[in-house]
Amino acid sequence: MDINGISKFTFGAPFNTNAVQGGISASSGMPPHIRMGADARSFKCSLCKDDKVYGMGEAVRGINKRGWIYETYCSDDPMHTETKRSLYGAHPFVIVDGEEVFGLFVDYPDRVVFDIGYTKVNEMSVTIGAPDFDIYVIEGETPLEVVRRFRSLIGKSYIAPFWAFGFQQSRWSYNTSADVRNVIDGYRKNDLPLDAVYLDIDYMESFKDFTVSEERFPDFPEFVNEAKSRNIHLVPIIDAGVKIEEGYDVYEQGRDNGFFCKDKDGRDFVAAVWPGKVCFPDFLNEKAAEWFGMKYKRLTDAGIDGFWNDMNEPAIFYSEGCLERAIDKVASYKGRNVGIYDFFALKDAVLGLANSSEDYSSMYHNVNGKAVCHNTVHNLYGFNMTKSASDAFAKIAPDKNILMFSRASYIGMHRCSGIWMGDNQSWWSHIKLNLQMLPSLNMCGFLYTGADMVGFGDNCTEELALRWLALGIFNPLMRNHSALGTRDQEFYRFENREAFRSLLKLRYALIPYLYSEYINAAETDDMMFKPLAFEYRGDKFAEAVEDQLLVGGSIMIAPVCEPNAIGRSVYIPEKMLAVFFKSENSFRTKIYDKGHHFVEIPNDEVVVFIRGGKALPLVNSAACTAELDFSTLRFIANGAEGAIFTLCREAGVQNGRSVIEKQTLAVFGDEAETSFEVV
Amino acid sequence: MDINGISKFTFGAPFNTNAVQGGISASSGMPPHIRMGADARSFKCSLCKDDKVYGMGEAVRGINKRGWIYETYCSDDPMHTETKRSLYGAHPFVIVDGEEVFGLFVDYPDRVVFDIGYTKVNEMSVTIGAPDFDIYVIEGETPLEVVRRFRSLIGKSYIAPFWAFGFQQSRWSYNTSADVRNVIDGYRKNDLPLDAVYLDIDYMESFKDFTVSEERFPDFPEFVNEAKSRNIHLVPIIDAGVKIEEGYDVYEQGRDNGFFCKDKDGRDFVAAVWPGKVCFPDFLNEKAAEWFGMKYKRLTDAGIDGFWNDMNEPAIFYSEGCLERAIDKVASYKGRNVGIYDFFALKDAVLGLANSSEDYSSMYHNVNGKAVCHNTVHNLYGFNMTKSASDAFAKIAPDKNILMFSRASYIGMHRCSGIWMGDNQSWWSHIKLNLQMLPSLNMCGFLYTGADMVGFGDNCTEELALRWLALGIFNPLMRNHSALGTRDQEFYRFENREAFRSLLKLRYALIPYLYSEYINAAETDDMMFKPLAFEYRGDKFAEAVEDQLLVGGSIMIAPVCEPNAIGRSVYIPEKMLAVFFKSENSFRTKIYDKGHHFVEIPNDEVVVFIRGGKALPLVNSAACTAELDFSTLRFIANGAEGAIFTLCREAGVQNGRSVIEKQTLAVFGDEAETSFEVV
Repeated sequence: MDINGISKFTFGAPFNTNAVQGGISASSGMPPHIRMGADARSFKCSLCKDDKVYGMGEAVRGINKRGWIYETYCSDDPMHTETKRSLYGAHPFVIVDGEEVFGLFVDYPDRVVFDIGYTKVNEMSVTIGAPDFDIYVIEGETPLEVVRRFRSLIGKSYIAPFWAFGFQQSRWSYNTSADVRNVIDGYRKNDLPLDAVYLDIDYMESFKDFTVSEERFPDFPEFVNEAKSRNIHLVPIIDAGVKIEEGYDVYEQGRDNGFFCKDKDGRDFVAAVWPGKVCFPDFLNEKAAEWFGMKYKRLTDAGIDGFWNDMNEPAIFYSEGCLERAIDKVASYKGRNVGIYDFFALKDAVLGLANSSEDYSSMYHNVNGKAVCHNTVHNLYGFNMTKSASDAFAKIAPDKNILMFSRASYIGMHRCSGIWMGDNQSWWSHIKLNLQMLPSLNMCGFLYTGADMVGFGDNCTEELALRWLALGIFNPLMRNHSALGTRDQEFYRFENREAFRSLLKLRYALIPYLYSEYINAAETDDMMFKPLAFEYRGDKFAEAVEDQLLVGGSIMIAPVCEPNAIGRSVYIPEKMLAVFFKSENSFRTKIYDKGHHFVEIPNDEVVVFIRGGKALPLVNSAACTAELDFSTLRFIANGAEGAIFTLCREAGVQNGRSVIEKQTLAVFGDEAETSFEVV
Repeated sequence: MDINGISKFTFGAPFNTNAVQGGISASSGMPPHIRMGADARSFKCSLCKDDKVYGMGEAVRGINKRGWIYETYCSDDPMHTETKRSLYGAHPFVIVDGEEVFGLFVDYPDRVVFDIGYTKVNEMSVTIGAPDFDIYVIEGETPLEVVRRFRSLIGKSYIAPFWAFGFQQSRWSYNTSADVRNVIDGYRKNDLPLDAVYLDIDYMESFKDFTVSEERFPDFPEFVNEAKSRNIHLVPIIDAGVKIEEGYDVYEQGRDNGFFCKDKDGRDFVAAVWPGKVCFPDFLNEKAAEWFGMKYKRLTDAGIDGFWNDMNEPAIFYSEGCLERAIDKVASYKGRNVGIYDFFALKDAVLGLANSSEDYSSMYHNVNGKAVCHNTVHNLYGFNMTKSASDAFAKIAPDKNILMFSRASYIGMHRCSGIWMGDNQSWWSHIKLNLQMLPSLNMCGFLYTGADMVGFGDNCTEELALRWLALGIFNPLMRNHSALGTRDQEFYRFENREAFRSLLKLRYALIPYLYSEYINAAETDDMMFKPLAFEYRGDKFAEAVEDQLLVGGSIMIAPVCEPNAIGRSVYIPEKMLAVFFKSENSFRTKIYDKGHHFVEIPNDEVVVFIRGGKALPLVNSAACTAELDFSTLRFIANGAEGAIFTLCREAGVQNGRSVIEKQTLAVFGDEAETSFEVV
């Protein structure tokens, strides 16, 4: 065991994933706590009846992952039902919390199957794709200690620019600059704060990365500037696939320099995504990554200071070869008497085209001159795409902290960007999934994150939007995003605009708190969002809570995740001061004693529970983060005599990173009757 | 308004659906409470902020249907996510519960869209497929009064045989008699009660209705008899489509007599389902229906006394014409450079084949000699298929009460059969959906119902099975059913067999109660399962409860619907006696006062809350319903001095119906220290 309570065990010849920073020497012998399988690529570990298992980062189901089977395999799948085994990110890290407390990180860049009490109720069984991997065993007195040690192993978290704590509006797609202008107007004219508008794939010319449609976004730099003059950041999407088109320089450069992934015969691997036929930049090839990263300069030169990387699992709609075979298969039934099993085969031929392992097995990377099959390093693709941009930003624009987040990820990518939780749905159950993923992602270092608020796929309702907003205002990445063909869900489109205005403003009033607690978590390898189980050790009720979170050091939240509710049951783990915000300036308070309580929460209110001896700072809201006036800082405190709060502010940017200014404040008084002084 | 508080308003020339029994004369003028649209096929109604809307029968989402858009359209769709608009049954009945209380039944046999506060928060907007329909407006002081009046309009509910209250095991499929025998052995040898085993589609010869595979089920009558000697009923499935096969007499008779649905040119309409190409019996043609119904005799003659009618929306995998066009479409891309929009078109061509409106529009019924397009009467198909069987049973086997339930349904079908809740999933959210559909279906007269316990699609876990069982033991139709390719979920396959045994036995101990309350609800047009809102009027907490139910007159249930839970919050609407059953004979009790409580519930226990002054009867469990010994009857009472309970027993069968024997019992004493006497 090394000095930090972490032991590393190497099996076979692992591929270097860059998940771990610095790194430690491998121990000899076998890992503690687990029993390695004879196949040299699996292990088991017994669970006691009441043991909890945390981790898995981006995954479905509860904070306690026990009772299901998960696979770390970056997957483009928008149906996040509770039985899905993989989402977009691959985070093979778990914490067993029982009589023994320990963490396990299986550092392996392809599929790892975690059967956590699924096949056998009291056993965790882990199977790794190949016998080449590292296992890190992380000891700790508590799950939080395990998390902090794991985080110290994998490095400090990316810090997003301050403006990215403002509210951000997206849709697939605002097709023209006029569309974008309308959205900005919609927010500004209705006195609804806003800091960013997103450009989904349709801003591009024929979906070509690093192009902007001249027709739909004429004089783009001027338009970016126009938005900026209104304190709006435009955030364009970048997709992984590069359109094959003669004359398109990004394609031609990649082709001519051998920067694309190859097929087994060394030709460029071709698949289809939004632009039609594309090649995939080989982000595992250092030179190719560097080349692609520098391309973001085209947009930063136009004034862009934020990006989201998408489709980088990589998602594949079909490859030429597989589609050809599928068409042949279907065509072969022409004129024949198609039986039912023929029909299923026909249907499967078409349905099986997307993200097929056949395609992933036909794609090769050039890693230091060696051909490496994609299907052995699948989970590193999105990580390295995003790293390529992040590495470039330091050179392109050292005077800016450029916003970056990605859909696909692997452990370690938290050092260069955030992630969003992928293409969710306008489902009530996805409010809760949003909540449950926050701490799980924090465990893996992903602090700048959030779900597509109000839901990406499917149609929302006003009530869903209000209730989701009540959680969304605590997400560092607070973005409303929706898919093509779904009901419009910009907040100014709803009937009860006053409620949306009040809650959006409340977000802005809370930004000093949220940003400070985010910075604190990033700097100290802490979690900004904690399950109650992590704080109230030994409290069996707290340990079972799956729909409340501690946000930073001062507060607990308990959003309503059900339709037609008048409130919800809340477990209060210590005496707390509930603040029911109707708006930043209008609220009522109530003291709750430790125990279970039914709390009435109208859908135009947000309740925040302030912990004992803690204080919650607020400022006057503003139309955007740039206009927040920190001199309006005030506190609501729960019996705090001299409660300490460390306020963090972004005081500039150096070498592409935010410079953080801190003030330690002591708060005196109680509830809203407080004063504070700098200490 | 007629004497029962019901008014009928006729628009255009409605098709006679047979939903209503007897019937009443139409009123002149316009319906109260609603505003008819100028298009003569829509109406609106304002909702107050706190109004609730109940009804819709088989549908997703909560008991309060407000905040979504629903369509009554019998749909074969196994993904019951919360945003689906239609499931298998079509039940266009709603109750508005607010300052005004009234029910609306839109009697129309095709699509009716109910926008219940989806587009506009405070408006219900209903759009009917064509301007020919009846609207029944049902007045009432309370939602329950509206339900009882509506039920008096549509007629008495089907009463299932007593044995059908035993536990029933199903799977797609037990392929051979040996498989079935193994299942029976699995239950009997493990001392797990069981009354029925299901035969899914594979018992048939090439999926031909009313055939039994000689190879896999040799000497079927003898096998049925063998099962019966072990007190096991075998329940075969019957599908709507009749396989086209020369020499298959059912097909030939249907063809030769013109009993099948036609295409627009008068030829038999051909589509493909499990058997491959099929024709659909024209159940709207009285002679065809009578002919098909009598075919069940082949199986009743073999000793069968229960059936489930499936695929009767009717589900269509593809029709010859549409498939041909889809194949042509796909084949047309051969050798071409397929762009992304081409690809989506190609994919949609294949994906759009199932249950297409093109097919439903190409199918015709013969109604009293007149050709009626299926797409105008779609929702009547399953109803009339099931009615054809039910009508036949009275002739075929008047000495038996034959079990019958169906997948598709329309209002009125509750007179001839039960329904199951369709092809759900092994999802935690589907435990709650099971719970929420029970009262909604009861409102429409469907009393013999239940969900596929533990979930049909996807893989279950032991914890899910236990928690679902805790609700399942209260479902009249208590069936464990799972799909091809999913994890085995017969209860003897799990690790904690003792818990499954205890809970299954508890079901049998509760059968006298459940059967009595079921009979009572059927005879008095009452609901066996009531939302708390229906009973505790004016209690705002009770009115908002979506995950607890009153079951009969004595008890409330509050099952755990979340994984890894140690219990749940329960709203106690009046002082109640909680009985925590570890088994029928081992339980602890606790008094809860009115209010919100967190109730700890281990996953091997079931808690029942007995209402004040009420008593819950139990008998000794047995291996099957036939062996239940009513002389072991005992009670657990909540402060009941002279609490009255009406015990119902099946005392035989006359004219195909159960003869019910009743005893009124007065219970004295408290908790388990009770005695009773016949009064």
